[in-house]
Amino acid sequence: SQEFDFTDNSHRRFNPLTDSWILVSPHRAKRPWLGQQETPAKSTIPEYDEKCFLCPGNKRVTGGSNPKYESTYVFQNDFAAVKTDQPALEVYNSGKDTLKDRLIKVQGVRGNCFVICFSPKHNLTIPQMEIKDLSTVISTWQQLYNDLSKQAVEEKKPFKYLQIFENKGTAMGCSNLHPHGQAWCLESVPSEVSQEFKSFDKYKHAHNADLLGDYVKLEMEERTRIVLENDSFLVVVPYWAVWPFETMIVSKTKVPSVAHFTDKQKNDLASMMKQLTVKYDNLFETSFPYSMGLHQAPLNATGDELNNAWFHMHFYPPLLRSATVRKFLVGFEMLGEPQRDLTAEQAADRLRKLDGVHHYTENL
Amino acid sequence: SQEFDFTDNSHRRFNPLTDSWILVSPHRAKRPWLGQQETPAKSTIPEYDEKCFLCPGNKRVTGGSNPKYESTYVFQNDFAAVKTDQPALEVYNSGKDTLKDRLIKVQGVRGNCFVICFSPKHNLTIPQMEIKDLSTVISTWQQLYNDLSKQAVEEKKPFKYLQIFENKGTAMGCSNLHPHGQAWCLESVPSEVSQEFKSFDKYKHAHNADLLGDYVKLEMEERTRIVLENDSFLVVVPYWAVWPFETMIVSKTKVPSVAHFTDKQKNDLASMMKQLTVKYDNLFETSFPYSMGLHQAPLNATGDELNNAWFHMHFYPPLLRSATVRKFLVGFEMLGEPQRDLTAEQAADRLRKLDGVHHYTENL
Ligand SMILES: O=P(O)(O)O[C@H]1O[C@H](CO)[C@@H](O)[C@H](O)[C@H]1O
Ligand SMILES: O=P(O)(O)O[C@H]1O[C@H](CO)[C@@H](O)[C@H](O)[C@H]1O
Repeated sequence: SQEFDFTDNSHRRFNPLTDSWILVSPHRAKRPWLGQQETPAKSTIPEYDEKCFLCPGNKRVTGGSNPKYESTYVFQNDFAAVKTDQPALEVYNSGKDTLKDRLIKVQGVRGNCFVICFSPKHNLTIPQMEIKDLSTVISTWQQLYNDLSKQAVEEKKPFKYLQIFENKGTAMGCSNLHPHGQAWCLESVPSEVSQEFKSFDKYKHAHNADLLGDYVKLEMEERTRIVLENDSFLVVVPYWAVWPFETMIVSKTKVPSVAHFTDKQKNDLASMMKQLTVKYDNLFETSFPYSMGLHQAPLNATGDELNNAWFHMHFYPPLLRSATVRKFLVGFEMLGEPQRDLTAEQAADRLRKLDGVHHYTENL
Repeated sequence: SQEFDFTDNSHRRFNPLTDSWILVSPHRAKRPWLGQQETPAKSTIPEYDEKCFLCPGNKRVTGGSNPKYESTYVFQNDFAAVKTDQPALEVYNSGKDTLKDRLIKVQGVRGNCFVICFSPKHNLTIPQMEIKDLSTVISTWQQLYNDLSKQAVEEKKPFKYLQIFENKGTAMGCSNLHPHGQAWCLESVPSEVSQEFKSFDKYKHAHNADLLGDYVKLEMEERTRIVLENDSFLVVVPYWAVWPFETMIVSKTKVPSVAHFTDKQKNDLASMMKQLTVKYDNLFETSFPYSMGLHQAPLNATGDELNNAWFHMHFYPPLLRSATVRKFLVGFEMLGEPQRDLTAEQAADRLRKLDGVHHYTENL
């Protein structure tokens, strides 16, 4: 009988972080695509746009105006999904095991939302920034993390978890081209994060080790999914990746949060972010869209929350075959299980082989 | 102190089917949208398109050609994600608790994939079909379910779960406009479905009742999230809906699968599907995109799998504000938790009030 061929035969892989499976159908990459075409980012974007709500000195959506900032700039989101001031929600429970008691679970959520303009330049994306300026972005994340932790303690603000992320490109719902990230701070740990903490905990009980610590060791042994590496971080296409060129930047040693970084680690992360996103742009010679974000310890974490936390970043980029053809995670993926059209190893291989020089910066 | 206002204040709601939380930020619907615009479906699509791979009599992508079919037509997917014939995958385990044993879990997945053309007409979507023709679509689902169940037993085919779904519209990754659904049959129960079965089981142990049975009763008491109703089915915007106008069609009594329907139930489902999708089209006066699918008992189910199964369909439509503005579930949603911009009750109210007549069929 024939041998199982991972580059052609369908299989499912288990994601120990989310505790769920992914269907891999590598032969499917061959089917023709007649569906929606994405619009690649324009190649001529000015350094300053007078109509942009985020450029230095410009009017904001809600009135006010931005200072003439010269480096990374943070402000409160004008359309925050969560706010500090709202009435408390008393949790209803009749105590009589009614249908409502059984089925309706709800919590009030307070918090605060911030926008982080990476630089004053309207056209400068992460792959085009200097490493030292990316370090400044990371310093800004650290400062937010520390400030909000302090406000939680000293001013009793409802801040428990800080979700830092970036939506890049119109394909990922970004509504303003000026390169920026966001930071949403909530009084509850969001679902995805609390699921990871559950998995960390389960793994520690089973193996007396850290899930991501072991995973880093395994990837360094196998080396088939590593895209980039330096002293402090590994960039891998995780074994259980869902998006075609999904990656994870994971610290080699246990660091609970961005605020716990040494200067060396900060610099090493800036370097990995730059190198990875340059590869992404080079892959399809386009300003590569993605959503990315940090997973780390909750603010003021102690005990297991602090001990089990292991800093990492997820990059979820939608493009599959070219600057205009993306992967859709739709019918089967939403109702059945996520499905991908190439293996993690194939994706890692392609990314690994790409140049580290931003090839077409001049054309952008 | 002020009262908590569910139509304005942020809160999270628990989804007992997926065992996770959703963030609801109703005030956010007010923010301006400057991002990607969707392309609505063209309003002049011919009844027959000579270039379509799905129209009767036409050439298929891989050679062959379609019969001159006159009703619902099923064929095997030319680019199936899973296949019946592939080598078996021996599950690796050294038995020594190595890193690989701990972290790499993989299974081979065999199965079969089908395409179901709803009708010969290239431009006839579900809301525009006659109820009797929608009954024929449902009969086709029943026949597939029964045939594949039989093949699993009699021919020992690797068929365990049949996931029936439709991706409608280019925004939902549909690559061929000719109205069609799909059916993927796999040897494993997909993640989303097995999560629901876990939840059904847990609920039964806790309350000695069916989760969806109780939920139907609750919705019929509260009536704030019901969109449509007939003798056999309820259409609700679930309390924990993620997509702006997400709905669930749920049977009022326990029916394990589409194959267990009476003729009355088949007709009632056809009627709900028609009425719901007409409302969807009327909402933003466009051919409303969505992914939808059936959740039901595995093939040849017995024991808990049969006893806990409760037929329902999920509709996941992306549009938020108009024919061109969709909700993006991106950065915060992917890394933190799903977030929505209006409450389930607000969405249900809008859908409920819409006309049941397809207003603009003539313009399509
Ligand atoms: O099978 P299709 O219609 O070619 O493809 C579409 O549906 C599939 C099943 O949901 C997805 O995997 C694809 O990404 C999507 O484009
Ligand atoms: O906050 P923005 O950039 O206006 O909006 C974008 O990111 C948010 C957070 O991921 C999402 O909820 C929105 O759907 C998306 O369009």
